[in-house]
Amino acid sequence: MREVLGQACSIVGREMVSVERTIEALLAPAGQQLSAAIEQAIGAEGKRLRPALVLLSGRLFSFRRSRLVSIAAAMELVHMASLVHDDVIDRAETRRGRASVQQRFGNQVAVLLGDYFLAKALELVAPMGPNVVGAIAGVVNDLVEGEFAQRRMNGSRVSEEAYLASIEYKTARFLATCCRLGARVGGAAQELCALLGEYGRHLGLAFQIRDDVLDLVGSEAHQGKPVGSDLRQGIITLPVIHGMRQERVAEHLRELLAAEKLDIEGVRHLLVGAGSIDYALKLAEDHIRQAKELLTGIPASVPREALSAIADFSIRRVS
Amino acid sequence: MREVLGQACSIVGREMVSVERTIEALLAPAGQQLSAAIEQAIGAEGKRLRPALVLLSGRLFSFRRSRLVSIAAAMELVHMASLVHDDVIDRAETRRGRASVQQRFGNQVAVLLGDYFLAKALELVAPMGPNVVGAIAGVVNDLVEGEFAQRRMNGSRVSEEAYLASIEYKTARFLATCCRLGARVGGAAQELCALLGEYGRHLGLAFQIRDDVLDLVGSEAHQGKPVGSDLRQGIITLPVIHGMRQERVAEHLRELLAAEKLDIEGVRHLLVGAGSIDYALKLAEDHIRQAKELLTGIPASVPREALSAIADFSIRRVS
Repeated sequence: MREVLGQACSIVGREMVSVERTIEALLAPAGQQLSAAIEQAIGAEGKRLRPALVLLSGRLFSFRRSRLVSIAAAMELVHMASLVHDDVIDRAETRRGRASVQQRFGNQVAVLLGDYFLAKALELVAPMGPNVVGAIAGVVNDLVEGEFAQRRMNGSRVSEEAYLASIEYKTARFLATCCRLGARVGGAAQELCALLGEYGRHLGLAFQIRDDVLDLVGSEAHQGKPVGSDLRQGIITLPVIHGMRQERVAEHLRELLAAEKLDIEGVRHLLVGAGSIDYALKLAEDHIRQAKELLTGIPASVPREALSAIADFSIRRVS
Repeated sequence: MREVLGQACSIVGREMVSVERTIEALLAPAGQQLSAAIEQAIGAEGKRLRPALVLLSGRLFSFRRSRLVSIAAAMELVHMASLVHDDVIDRAETRRGRASVQQRFGNQVAVLLGDYFLAKALELVAPMGPNVVGAIAGVVNDLVEGEFAQRRMNGSRVSEEAYLASIEYKTARFLATCCRLGARVGGAAQELCALLGEYGRHLGLAFQIRDDVLDLVGSEAHQGKPVGSDLRQGIITLPVIHGMRQERVAEHLRELLAAEKLDIEGVRHLLVGAGSIDYALKLAEDHIRQAKELLTGIPASVPREALSAIADFSIRRVS
């Protein structure tokens, strides 16, 4: 996805490079063992969606380059911290999948590295005043709340409402904050900051729903992780919740999920047949429609088109 | 120790209560599963040394009560975060000892809870400007560096220098920051802030050395954790480093440490006989002497006496 984001974001291309350099420079002085872990984490090459949203949302208005680059880098560092901390596993649990920091260096290093990323994000935004620092605090808080909401969904208490609440905290609020803060630093009026925040929220909901669908029906080659990772970790997502509501497949689905060895092909077949994949994709499309509608409240411009392209792409991507 | 700290800190007793209430109020709105974990973490009842240092260092000068209480609470939250994150264990490792958050709720909850504490600390200090936010960033950064320094000491690369570097980062800088920041917010001149920071640094070094000695020769009843925890985790502390340098015990000590089952009585006997415990305690006393000497640079006052009492107590405590 990075290439496509790159095309959409060419107007802030120079700033995206600055974001990378800022992150690299911040992490460079680390000790040897820490450096190896950092390399492993950074090597994964994220989509850099959050920095792009900060920069484009600022670019819509006036462009305070260095502040926006710092905030963009800080948001990416918080995201990296959450990914590394997400990879920490419980004692008894074993997980397949890509080589994470945790797998190569152990839980303790993963925890420390995440804390380190948070410290560096904080270092970046410390001079930027209460709003920016408070926004980072809010994002970290929401990520934790989202993880707990997701954990609560294990077992019987699975509902579409609970699912939507968890992705609201985990993803939608984070992307909303990136957009709102970018606009604010760009000097936008309060109602436009709120509008951009709403755009980010809908984008985040759609983005996460697409992510969860791809985990069920995507290809391992594209995603770089085995299909069905969520289910293997006991994470129930929207298509499965929809499937459970369809009387004709619910019992079979329940059996498949209860089996010792996950038959992901069987689950996939069942959910496609029950229209559960289409149902989830339709909801993601609805959110993208709303996100793009919000953008019409802003005068046409190159960065506005870029935000619109990101919205379109977020529900078409295959990785 | 909390009672003795309480006596020394009676001049800021009301503020210490406010710190507790601030922390409780911040953590109260958490969801159910998070609340249970928070209770487990808070139930451990720390010494509240860091808040006491912030409040007393501020009280030496003018007393900006609400700012100092918030900073004191934030520092304690960062400390709580580091304790919970320290308890995360690697997959293969098993650890005896007190019931930690990790033991009861698993690694993932421990990671999330630590992140949550950090978010709340950040929320508290967000309005307080770059110096305070930067100080929190610095403390988190140093805690990570200290842990990595400690990890590097496993195996053959064990030296007194490396040990001192690790406790400098892990403990000394944290306490130094509490004192320096308290003084600064209290309105102290720059050189007095630096002086208080140096006091905190020496206190921190002494405090950690005493801690490490207690882990070898203290009583399980006083400390609430089994003696020898550090060695069981492969953490080498000052008395052991000293013992390794004594030719007449080094080989025997090495054998004891290499044994499958740790003979903590044997190690203790050896280190006492080799003068290693006395050596470490002497170094802690030296630092306390320096800490108290620094305090003579400030006019006599009740808070100054309290800081002096904390210094004395830090090397006499049994838990």
